[in-house]
This record gives sequence, C-alpha cells and structure tokens, in this order.
Amino acid sequence: MSSAASIKPEQPATPASAAPSVHRLASVLNAQSVAIVGASADGSKISGRPLAYMLASGYQGKLFPVNPSRTEVQGLPCYPSLSAIGQPVDLVIIGTASAHVEGIVLEGVAAGVKAFVVFSSGFAELSEEGRRMQERLGALAREHGVTIVGPNCLGVANSHTGLIASFTTAVESSKLHAGRFSFVSQSGALGAYWLDIVLRSGIGAGQWITTGNECDVDAAEAIDFLASDPGTEVIGLYIEDIRRPDAFRHALQRAARAGKPVIAIKSGRSQAGAAAAASHTGALAGDDALYDACLQQYGALRVDSLTEMMDAARIFLRGATPLGPKLAVMSVSGGAGVLIADACESLGLALPALSASTVDALTPVLPAFVHPANPLDITGNVLQDTAMIGASFRALGADPGIDGIVLFIGMMHSIADVFVRELSEARREIACPIIVVWIGALESSIRALEDKGIPVFLDIPQAMRAIAQSLQVRDRQRAAMAVKLPPPNDAPQRAAGRPISEWDGKQRLRHCPVIALPCGQLIASDEEIRVSPDGTINGLSYPLVAKLQSSDLLHKSDAGAVILPIRDADALRAAISRLQAIGQQLNIDSQGVLVEEMIPFDHELLLGLRMDERFGATLTLARGGVEAELWPDVVSRLLPLSAHDVEVMLRGLRIGRLLEGFRSRPAADVPALAARVAQLCAWFVQQPLTELEINPLAVRGDQAWALDALVTPHG
Amino acid sequence: MSSAASIKPEQPATPASAAPSVHRLASVLNAQSVAIVGASADGSKISGRPLAYMLASGYQGKLFPVNPSRTEVQGLPCYPSLSAIGQPVDLVIIGTASAHVEGIVLEGVAAGVKAFVVFSSGFAELSEEGRRMQERLGALAREHGVTIVGPNCLGVANSHTGLIASFTTAVESSKLHAGRFSFVSQSGALGAYWLDIVLRSGIGAGQWITTGNECDVDAAEAIDFLASDPGTEVIGLYIEDIRRPDAFRHALQRAARAGKPVIAIKSGRSQAGAAAAASHTGALAGDDALYDACLQQYGALRVDSLTEMMDAARIFLRGATPLGPKLAVMSVSGGAGVLIADACESLGLALPALSASTVDALTPVLPAFVHPANPLDITGNVLQDTAMIGASFRALGADPGIDGIVLFIGMMHSIADVFVRELSEARREIACPIIVVWIGALESSIRALEDKGIPVFLDIPQAMRAIAQSLQVRDRQRAAMAVKLPPPNDAPQRAAGRPISEWDGKQRLRHCPVIALPCGQLIASDEEIRVSPDGTINGLSYPLVAKLQSSDLLHKSDAGAVILPIRDADALRAAISRLQAIGQQLNIDSQGVLVEEMIPFDHELLLGLRMDERFGATLTLARGGVEAELWPDVVSRLLPLSAHDVEVMLRGLRIGRLLEGFRSRPAADVPALAARVAQLCAWFVQQPLTELEINPLAVRGDQAWALDALVTPHG
Repeated sequence: MSSAASIKPEQPATPASAAPSVHRLASVLNAQSVAIVGASADGSKISGRPLAYMLASGYQGKLFPVNPSRTEVQGLPCYPSLSAIGQPVDLVIIGTASAHVEGIVLEGVAAGVKAFVVFSSGFAELSEEGRRMQERLGALAREHGVTIVGPNCLGVANSHTGLIASFTTAVESSKLHAGRFSFVSQSGALGAYWLDIVLRSGIGAGQWITTGNECDVDAAEAIDFLASDPGTEVIGLYIEDIRRPDAFRHALQRAARAGKPVIAIKSGRSQAGAAAAASHTGALAGDDALYDACLQQYGALRVDSLTEMMDAARIFLRGATPLGPKLAVMSVSGGAGVLIADACESLGLALPALSASTVDALTPVLPAFVHPANPLDITGNVLQDTAMIGASFRALGADPGIDGIVLFIGMMHSIADVFVRELSEARREIACPIIVVWIGALESSIRALEDKGIPVFLDIPQAMRAIAQSLQVRDRQRAAMAVKLPPPNDAPQRAAGRPISEWDGKQRLRHCPVIALPCGQLIASDEEIRVSPDGTINGLSYPLVAKLQSSDLLHKSDAGAVILPIRDADALRAAISRLQAIGQQLNIDSQGVLVEEMIPFDHELLLGLRMDERFGATLTLARGGVEAELWPDVVSRLLPLSAHDVEVMLRGLRIGRLLEGFRSRPAADVPALAARVAQLCAWFVQQPLTELEINPLAVRGDQAWALDALVTPHG
Repeated sequence: MSSAASIKPEQPATPASAAPSVHRLASVLNAQSVAIVGASADGSKISGRPLAYMLASGYQGKLFPVNPSRTEVQGLPCYPSLSAIGQPVDLVIIGTASAHVEGIVLEGVAAGVKAFVVFSSGFAELSEEGRRMQERLGALAREHGVTIVGPNCLGVANSHTGLIASFTTAVESSKLHAGRFSFVSQSGALGAYWLDIVLRSGIGAGQWITTGNECDVDAAEAIDFLASDPGTEVIGLYIEDIRRPDAFRHALQRAARAGKPVIAIKSGRSQAGAAAAASHTGALAGDDALYDACLQQYGALRVDSLTEMMDAARIFLRGATPLGPKLAVMSVSGGAGVLIADACESLGLALPALSASTVDALTPVLPAFVHPANPLDITGNVLQDTAMIGASFRALGADPGIDGIVLFIGMMHSIADVFVRELSEARREIACPIIVVWIGALESSIRALEDKGIPVFLDIPQAMRAIAQSLQVRDRQRAAMAVKLPPPNDAPQRAAGRPISEWDGKQRLRHCPVIALPCGQLIASDEEIRVSPDGTINGLSYPLVAKLQSSDLLHKSDAGAVILPIRDADALRAAISRLQAIGQQLNIDSQGVLVEEMIPFDHELLLGLRMDERFGATLTLARGGVEAELWPDVVSRLLPLSAHDVEVMLRGLRIGRLLEGFRSRPAADVPALAARVAQLCAWFVQQPLTELEINPLAVRGDQAWALDALVTPHG
C-alpha cells in the first residue's frame, strides 16, 4: 500500500446515536460520495487506481480526491483534507501507512463520515503492535458508530453503481459489468481472481466485498448485507476463518430465507493447509469438520475451487436448478449419452425410463433406427433434420416423470444458430429447466443460450456435478430455513474444567431421563459385596462388568481397568482386587469400582456433545469400536438439532443401514433413538458442562443406554 | 454416408503371402497414395471432404479421386474405377452404400491395394443382415491379407503427413497441426471432439484412429501400432467394448514398455450407461470392475472425460511428471497456497518441510515478513521484486527433498513476460519439473510456457489431480512392464458346467497343497459315527461343524444347513438328523453331511477365481461377512499374478490394515498369504475349472484354510 501524506485528526465527533434504518454496509456499497485520501494523479498507482477506475466505470456519485500537495487530481478538484471538502461524504478510502489510519478515521468522523474502506497493511498480519493498532481501529468504529472495512483489504465494489473502492487490476482487463453474483472474500487475492473470472466470462458481478483483517466489518456481516441486497441473487464466499460463527450461521440462514444460494470456499481443509492459514492471516486453524457442518446445516454449498464455484453459480443464475433428480438426457452422440449416464450414477441423479406417451411422441420425430430411450440418442442426423430438436424437447418436456433436461452437443457449428433458437423456444415452452453440455461450443452460442436461461458447460463432469450441487443447495436451504435459531450469541465459550470419573459423570446423567444407565453400584472394597440367596450381588443381575473409577483414569480399557463378563461373586471379588491393584500400580486416586449389569444390545454408537471454542454446542455421532478406528464413520452438527435432524444424521452414517436392520440383524427404532438424542442435546446445553461423551451408546429397539460416559464440567 | 456410384469387383487377387516387415496399420496411417471412391466435387459433402481436407493439409502423397461420372474432381484427374488408376495405391477410402463395400474391396484387392478405410454405415449397428455383411468384410480382410478400418467409422488421420482419411469437420475449425498425442476411438463422435479440442487448444494431434465397427482393425491393434509409432508419445483411448482383451493388454504393456502413457475413457461405468452402450454399438456390456482392473494392471490411466484426459496428457507431453510425490508449492497468494495444500492431501501428494539450507537460501530473497515454508508465499511483492522468482526457484530446485515445484500465479499480467522468462530458465536449470497454476493466464503466456516444457493449468484442482495421475501412471507402467504375459490368446472361454458340492469341490482342492482344508469326513448317516474312548468322533477334534452336502444346495447357510459349534457326539447326532431332515424338506439329492473340525482363525476373506467370458482368469479378493455386504471391500485383477501383485491387492483392501495387525488384533503374515494365493492362481488355470470360490478363507499367521468352497468345473 503506498502511503499518502499524513493527515492528523482535528476533533473527534460525538458517536452517532440514531439507529440506522438501512444495513450498515449499505453506507459503504451504496455510497453516493467518496473521498480518496492520498489520491494520486497517476491512475496506475495503487493510490490513483480507485479514482481512475471509478471515472472509467461511470460512477455517478461525487468523487473527492484528498491530497494536501495537489489542487487537482485526474481532472477533479483536490482537497487538502477531509474536513476541507465541506460537503457530505459517505465513504472514505484510506490507503496510507498504517500509523496514519486512526488519525484519518478520526478526522472523517469529525467531518461526519459514516464509512471507511482501509487498504493499508501493517496491522495484525504483521506484528503485535499492528494487532493493537487494529484493535484500536475496531474500537473507534464501535465508539463512533461508523463502519470500517479492512484494514489490509482489497476494498469493495458495486457493479450496479460503478463504485470501485478498490485497487484491484481485475477491473482493468474487463469492464465491471453488472451481474447478480456477489462475492465476499477474506483474501484480497482470491477476491481479485473471482472478479477477473466473472468479468471475463460474462457472468458479471453484483457486490464485491473483501474484508481483510476485519477490525469491524466481517464476512458474516457482509453476507447478511447481501441477503437483503436487491442486486444480489447468488452469494459466493472465500473464507479462512470465521470469527463470529453464530452471526455467520444467522447470515447464512437469512440468505436461505431470501432464496439466495451461497457457495463457499473454505480453505484449510488439510492439516498442512490449516498450518499455512494460521501463518497467513493470523487466524486460528478451524476445525474443518465443524466448518463443513456449519456450512451444510445452514444451506451453503462448499466447493474446492473458483472454477467449481462458477459452474454451480451459473445453474443458479440461470434459474436452471432441475425440479428434482430425474433427468432426461438428449445427445447427438450415443457415446456421450452413456458418459452422462455414467456421471449421474455417483451423483444421485437418475435417468428414469421415458413414459409410454413420451416414447410415442418421440418415435415419429427420430430416425427410424433410433429407439426412444433415456439417454436419448438423437444422432448426427440432426445436422440434416433440425426439426427433431424442438420436437424432442417438447416430447420430453411433457413427460411428467422428468425434472430437467440435459442436452449434449458436440461441435455442430453449422447448426449452432438453430440449436440456440430451438432451445430458447423450448426453454419458454416447457416447465423443466434445460442444461446444455456443448463440447467445442462457440462463445457466441454460449452467451446467447445463457441469456435465455440455459447454462452451457464445456464438458460432462462439470455440468453433472453442478446440477447435483444445485439440488443439494435447494434441499439444504429449505432445511436451513426451518431451523429455529436463538439470537446470535458470539460470547466466548466457557473454559473446560477437568473430566470427572465415569461414576460422577453418570450421577449427572441421571438427571436426564432420555438415556438409560445400567443398574450399578460404586463399591469401595469387596467388603461391600452382599450375596443374596439367589446368588445375585447387591441386587444386580449377572453378567456384570467392573470398572475402576478415578478422574485420573479416562481411558479405562487401555489400562485393563474394565473386567467383563463377571458371572459369580468369586469372579467379582477377584475383579475388584485386580482393579484395586491396577489403581495402586498406576498410583491414581481411586473412587472405587463401578459394578454394573451388562446390557444386551444390538448396536453400538459413540455420542459426543461438546462446547466447541468456536462453534459452541456440537453433536458428534459415530460408529463405535475398532471398525470405527479403521474407517471413521462419523457426522458432526452444530446445535440446535431437532429429532428429525438427528435422524438424518443417523441415517447418513454408513452404519445407518445396520440401524435400519440389515440381513438378519435386528433393526433399531431410529426415530425413537433420534428423539432421545435430540432431547439429550437440549438437556446438555442447559448444564454447566463442556463435554459429554457416551461411548458406547448401546441401542436395542427404542432403548438407549450409556454404557460409559466421560463428562467434563465447565472450569 | 453418401453413396457413390456402384463399382463391381473384377477379379479377386491371391492372398498376400509375404509377412509384413512393418506394422499392418502403417499401410493405413503412413499411406503414400490414397484413392477416394465416390469422391465428390463438393468439398463440403462427406464424399468430398477427405480430398478437400488433404488438399488443404498439404498431404504430399498421391491422391486419386474415383468416380465414373467425372473426369476431374477438385482439380485432380478422376478415375472411373480403382483398376483404372494404373498406379500403386496404398489406401482406399470407401463411403458408399453398405451393399457396395464388399465389391469395392475386392476390386481394390485385385488392383493390389493393401488397406481400406470404410466410412459406410448400415452394418452390425443396424441389422442382422448388416452384421453378416460385416462378418464377410472381416473374412475378406483375412483371406486376402488386407487391412480394413471400419466400417461405420469416422476414419483416420496422420498429422505428420497430413493424411486425412476422414470426413470429420474438426479439421475445418482448426488446422491439423502436428503433435505427439495420438488417439484411438471406438466412437466417431468422441474422436471428433478429441480432435477438435487438441487442435483448438494447441496441444496438437499425432495419429488419430477411429475404429468404428471393427470388422478387422480393432482398438487393441491400433494401440499396438501407436506403441511403436515414432510420432506418438502419449496415447488416448475412448473404448466402449474390447473384443480381444488379451491382445488389448499386450498392447497396453507394449505402450508401457515404450514409455508411452495411455489415458483411457471407458464408457458404461453405470448400469444405465452399460444398457445404452449395448443398444448403441451392439457391444456387450462389459464388467466394469474388470475393465478397470485390466486398464490399471497394464499401466493405463482411466479418466471420466476428455477434459480430464487433456489435463493429464499435458503433464506427460511436457515431460513434467514429478520425480515423486513430494512437492514444493510457491504462490503469489497465501490463500491459494493453502488451497493447493488442501488439494494435495487427498491425492497422496506431500508438501514436505523445506530443508534448512533451502530456508537459508530463501530468507534473503523473500520479503522480511515472509517466513520460508511449504507452501511458500512469495506475496504480491513479486510485482515490484521480480528477481525473487528465479532466486526462489533455484533455492527450491536445490532442495534434495523436493520432487517437483508447483507455482501459483493469479493474473499479474504486468509481469507475465518476466514469469515466462524466469520459469523457462529455471526449467532448464533445475532437475525437477515445474507445473504452473495460473488463474487468468493470457493465452500467449500459456503457449510460451508449454513450449518450454511447463504445463499451465487455469485452476488448482485440475492441476493437482493431473500431477497425482501422472505419478500413478508412472508407477503402474513400471509394474506393467514387469508382468510376464503369455502370448495373446483370445480364444473363447470354455463354457461353465454346474457347480459341485463343497465335498466334491474340496476333493479337487486337495491336489493344491497351498490352501489347507480342515480335517473332515463325509458321513452318510449317524451309523457311521464312531466315538473314541477320549470322546472324539471319527478321529476329529471338537468343536466340529456339520454341513449338508448337495450339488443342489449352494447357499447352505441361508437354508440353515450349517450347524456349529458341535461339542459332543450327541450334538453331532442331532445335527446330522436335522440336516437330513432339511435335505428331505428341500427335496434335494444329498450326498451326506460333511463333518469338519472348526479352525480358529484371525481374519476372514473371500477368494474368488473365475474364468471370465471376456477377460479369462481373474482373481477377486474381498472382505467376508456382513460388513462386506454393507460396504464392499473388494479388489479384482486379471491373471497372471505374482505373489507381489497379490500382496499389493491385499494391502490395498480396507482390511489390509487389519491384516497388518491393528490395535490388539493379531497380524497375518501377508507375504506368506500372498504367496499361497499366487500359487493357488497358478494351479487354478491348469485345472478344468470355470470357478473356485473360497468363502471364507480363514487366515491365521502364515496359514490359510478353505472353510468352504464352491467349485464349478468346465461344462
């Protein structure tokens, strides 16, 4: 960031008291007047670019270059300071050395400015001193009720007004033309690449917001703004770390309720990646599974690249999400039709048989040697007989069993115009969307079809993946809309205390009646053993299990501190002695031995409830036992969760099929189990607990027992 | 196919007797003189295109249009018939109505022609009559020792000579420029798309062969030709069905030995796809897993699309396969570096820590705020300090722990030329390959870098996948080279007989000493039970298992016809009665009851040896039991297989980790087990057996027992 002349603040203004009737970020993105501090006469310099870009983009608001050493910049009158402008200024762009930023913000506040975009680097990403400066900047924003984007950001842009409060060169290669796809990026570079791609490809941009170090405005707030922004239909995200996860999921839910698909890249999926992210942005490495859960639960699609994001976005922007997963495939090449069918299988897309009436309608349309089927091979004869294009579409479009039509074309430039015309007509006439895969398509054909609401892909896998993803997003956003979220609360989580013994943990669990506990007793020594005439001990039925109890011994099995099955009093006495000996050997404080009845069960799960430092209360369900260690079968979700949500989690596990009864194995009552787990979740968040792990959770029919429990109270 | 005038054969020539010293297909692809039967004066018509294309491509051989109704075609003298040409003709192109093709071939044979390309459709793909015509065409080729490509094909092309014996319009949009990437396609359409892409993208084509209905030349022979073709470095394939799988794998092995990567699309992965393939080409639906096995074992890379094929091919064509999986990543954006690291994880690529000397070398080169790490963030400062590009490359290139360098660039058009220059120099100077991911790259930069042996990708996932695939191909081809294949033998497989009883099957297995059988006896009635003083029965040790034996009862467990464990003589008598009752109830011919000792074991596998109708002898190894039915854990391979091959199969299963000993579970002796299985394979192919299934195969230590066996002799 090149530094402009240093400008000292004059006098801090009193904080604004009136509650804004519009979104805070509207003052940034919809600014009607912009001052550029340190504006350069050279439009190729970073400090000259925002002005040059806005002059070129046709921005209709007022522009005020501020630079004490000039009277004119890029043809506009230049002001020595913000206070010298003497007119209302909505937005101030700051790209000075970091040390001057606070002063300029204070000067702006004094002049009545409500919003700032700060390019300047040298804050938390650089040093501890920078971090403190950044915190002061955030405090200034809160104190004075102003909005600050950045610092260390690439700025923002609004394609609808031509506002370019940015120095990104992405707007140099292609004009900033208006679209309905908006983007929020925590990385300036990724923001620039996104802008470059949407402008070059003709997709067009809506709002574009890079949040940088997020001293004030963060990604969650930017999404929240876009959810209500009329110029935005689809939201793209690049995130490295979410500082306010609760605000983030509220924003995602708001986007879902506004019917705006959200497509996110979250970096740091790998461990190596997470380490690099930490050194890059100063962000703590996130728990990737919980990020995944958060995005999925609140309706967002997670993708791995900008290319994948663009593919999915084009389906949404053209309104081409199929009505459901049942597709008809038309192809000018039989081989390509087969490849599309191949791609559908693993994506959960179906190619149903055509209805009898569709076959009847198609038969006279197609060459005699073609049998109407799905995929439908319209053959190279289409080059001579173009009438079959429209006729086939009308026949397929009338099939009530078809949710969308995929047309494959290869080259065929000689009839490209016919395809465009026939497809455009068909798109208007038939109820289900049309998606085209066109290998070797001309740029002009692509633009013409996209304009008519028909996305065009250049190869099969990209298209089929995007179609499947569009259906996923539709389903996820529907589910996300229904979630009853408490108001956002990003208060820091309570620190974890020390885990307590199984016995102590189970005493707490006793207050939650939804999960049963095996009958058991804590026995300090074998003197407490009372054998009844019928051979039972202390009223417990055989077989029994004996477990050494100590808050110092959390992995009892590994230490040999679980003995089972115990079938008589002598064996129990022996077990108790052995466990006591183990306790002495380990030199731990023992509470005694927990003797419990063994419960016969059909299924074994791991259930974990945890107050995550970032995401708050989370539920993890997994397969238990050695199998699970070999091939993890696990799902995590953020609370709150309904019984239905839990049921979906259970059925989504690989062992979901076992729970439903497989071959001769008995089924569990999955809805009943889900209801129990959901009640346990609701109970957990009321307790002063940081973690509750039940492993194994034993299941038979509609019953569930906590065979073991590891409980960690708050610290 | 437009039909030319009908030409009747004059006199069949005697079959050629001299063995060709060059490959049969060289007479087609390297033809020095070409006659086009039915050549049209209109170069836009199918019958006029080959001539028009070759005149435009600068083909240097002789061209003879043949058409009795013309004396001149497209500026060349036209002949009334093949026999009227009066000069040697290497290749004849035929696109007439199907009924005339045989006659024209016979006329050509009489005139000494050795090779034909037949575009004409109306053969096996259309009707039974067409199929018979096609068979006669194939017989003609064999009888007269000539080579026929097609019928129903799009023809062939050789970019090095400009030969275009094809009517594909792909050569109209872009000039047929020479490259080293060749293609064999069973689909004309896919062939055309491939050609269109390689020509438009600048990759360039080598040889291009569409095989159509394959009456004579098939895909296997085409690959075999390309393996020795000096103009080919990489081979692409599109296959729907391989008619001679043994010749096919020999051809793949030959390509591997020639160091030529093979990249294949095999359609029909899905069931729906397989059904469509059958109706499209008349090909039988293949067993996809065995196709997969065949491709993998003989070194080919299977991809799902032409796009994916091009990505992989560019790594090979630029000689940019890394030396191993350890990559250094350099990025102008920290975020992009993280995304690359994310992509590496699931692909088996590693980002090792940089050596201390590399860190030392990088430190003075990079901005002060950058800590040298992997991924290495060279930051946007590179725009001002381009010297760091070359210096960083030299530092990374000197790191002995690095097998390849991936550079990420985003836009940066202002220094694009510097990147091209520095990268080109670095590529020459350092030992390991360089791969570039450049979002928003200029076409000119891409071409310049590719020319210097540096493949350029436009986004991260495509690049990283192609890199991982290039390493896979290298390893697979190395393994494929070493396989000792018997001479190709595509004789039809023997028909399967009826499966025999477990007892009868085990009698056959007794001759193969590598797999043990539990001690057991066939008992017809409980009168045969002799109890010894020590309580054992017929010399067998408890516990025992009793199984009803009948060739009519193949799934004994499902019928309740397996009883275990049996611990005394009374239980055995009861079991025998129950089994006999079951036999009567099922009304099956029973041999008696097999009583066997139960074998204690640690691991349970399924082993299947089968003479597949298409691929011959195959070995399948899988996990046994219910788990395996829920989530198949299976690998199949074609024989022959070495002990090492089997070991790789075993370790590649998910239960491979269990076999190696996991947690407290005992390990199997995997090399010993693999050696036993390999010996069993060798034994199997010598037996008159169609199938041998051992399920379960019980394993403990270095021992393996066939607890049950299902054997099917030849019919």
